[in-house]
Amino acid sequence: MLVEGRHFLPDADPRSLGHKALAVNLSDLAAMGAAPRWALIALALPAADEAWLEAFASGLFALAARYGVDIVGGDTTRAALRTITITAIGQVPAEVALYRAGARPGDDIWVSGELGGAALALVHPEIAEVARRLHEPEPRVELGERLRGLANAAIDISDGLAGDLAHVLERSRVGAVVHYEHVPRPSAFKALDDAQLERDCVLSGGDDYELLFTAAPGHRQELEALAGELGLALARIGSIRDGDAKLLVLDAQGRPMAVRPAFDHFAPA
Amino acid sequence: MLVEGRHFLPDADPRSLGHKALAVNLSDLAAMGAAPRWALIALALPAADEAWLEAFASGLFALAARYGVDIVGGDTTRAALRTITITAIGQVPAEVALYRAGARPGDDIWVSGELGGAALALVHPEIAEVARRLHEPEPRVELGERLRGLANAAIDISDGLAGDLAHVLERSRVGAVVHYEHVPRPSAFKALDDAQLERDCVLSGGDDYELLFTAAPGHRQELEALAGELGLALARIGSIRDGDAKLLVLDAQGRPMAVRPAFDHFAPA
Repeated sequence: MLVEGRHFLPDADPRSLGHKALAVNLSDLAAMGAAPRWALIALALPAADEAWLEAFASGLFALAARYGVDIVGGDTTRAALRTITITAIGQVPAEVALYRAGARPGDDIWVSGELGGAALALVHPEIAEVARRLHEPEPRVELGERLRGLANAAIDISDGLAGDLAHVLERSRVGAVVHYEHVPRPSAFKALDDAQLERDCVLSGGDDYELLFTAAPGHRQELEALAGELGLALARIGSIRDGDAKLLVLDAQGRPMAVRPAFDHFAPA
Repeated sequence: MLVEGRHFLPDADPRSLGHKALAVNLSDLAAMGAAPRWALIALALPAADEAWLEAFASGLFALAARYGVDIVGGDTTRAALRTITITAIGQVPAEVALYRAGARPGDDIWVSGELGGAALALVHPEIAEVARRLHEPEPRVELGERLRGLANAAIDISDGLAGDLAHVLERSRVGAVVHYEHVPRPSAFKALDDAQLERDCVLSGGDDYELLFTAAPGHRQELEALAGELGLALARIGSIRDGDAKLLVLDAQGRPMAVRPAFDHFAPA
């Protein structure tokens, strides 16, 4: 559910918005290893603005077509603030669906792509490389389907690495160590040379919609081959540990780092 | 998609609202002859008001339990106006699903229950008999499933008899005659003795969530038996005609009546 003024600005590009509104749902399906099939769109608008609707629909339908998603229903109504609710439905055989609860001590922790770019784009909208990550994230649909039988647990990173990994740890009742230097990030951070901004974006920045997953070390070779096949970087950033659902992030010198808590939808904006 | 201030008042009883938000979706499924199975709830609230949420959930879950609907997902976020989007998913064998497009010349036009009560409750909220129809409509789930193989076309009456029947006529490319006196209505109208209000409510009032369907005259006996079995009145109110998608409503003297157009979500409120 995306609400104007909270999840997007009134003047947000409607084509990107149509793409992103569907992308975040396909990302949730990918995180379960599901193949996307159908979607329903509920749209509240202050007026029937045809140019806006056409651009919104073009972004949404282009992404839907790319992944074979049929738009099978929905609703329209009027409201002062634009509100977009998309429900996406996918299919996955029950025995290979990926859950947050499956992480096991000894698992490697992997992430796809790069993290922190979308959050950086909020601060530096002029950096085109990261702006695209914020406005037109690419759901990792193929990766999710290919992780069936390989990953033990998975989640998509919508609220930030630390917060989303914490969900996996809580559900799986395990701890984790993450090596900050191993977390892949856009090259734009180098030029900025702002260690605190970089840490906040990479560890706690939301909206990247990459997949985080855990897998037994025995699958490393297979996963590296998969990365090559998909043309999508997969990085090992840490490992799952026995014990409390605690996340330890270590810097390059092996010292524990402070990590901002997860984003709370009901916290003061 | 229900938006505060548009579809419900800020002080609406949250238990009734939870019921109604799901009921209107189950009604849509019933109109296709589908058995409801799953639902997803997206909720935008100005704050995490626990008493409100608990009452809302109790109304919603009670109805879900009654029809075996599992709540399998959803989303929560913050917005100035409460906004509720429910997606309900049902199942029906493809060859017996009911559509708006199936009405055939010669079909009887049937409606379940009584029409106009919900609209009357907006004007006379003190009449308990109709207030319940407005705030806690009963989706005609069993009827919808039993109409498989009997009805040629079906729709639920959410926007008013005239408007929703017009959708069937347009999709089916047929016309219709409806006998106003045959349309069942709450007894409350008698005491009020306001012919214009009664006509507006019965022909054009929304929110009743009864089913309108068409069926060949050969099914009359079966449908009357079904009404008895379900304990739900089914009334024959007219018939489908060859020709233009035109609706003719006749009064008791056989004279054509004026009918308000269908409700338009984007018309000025």
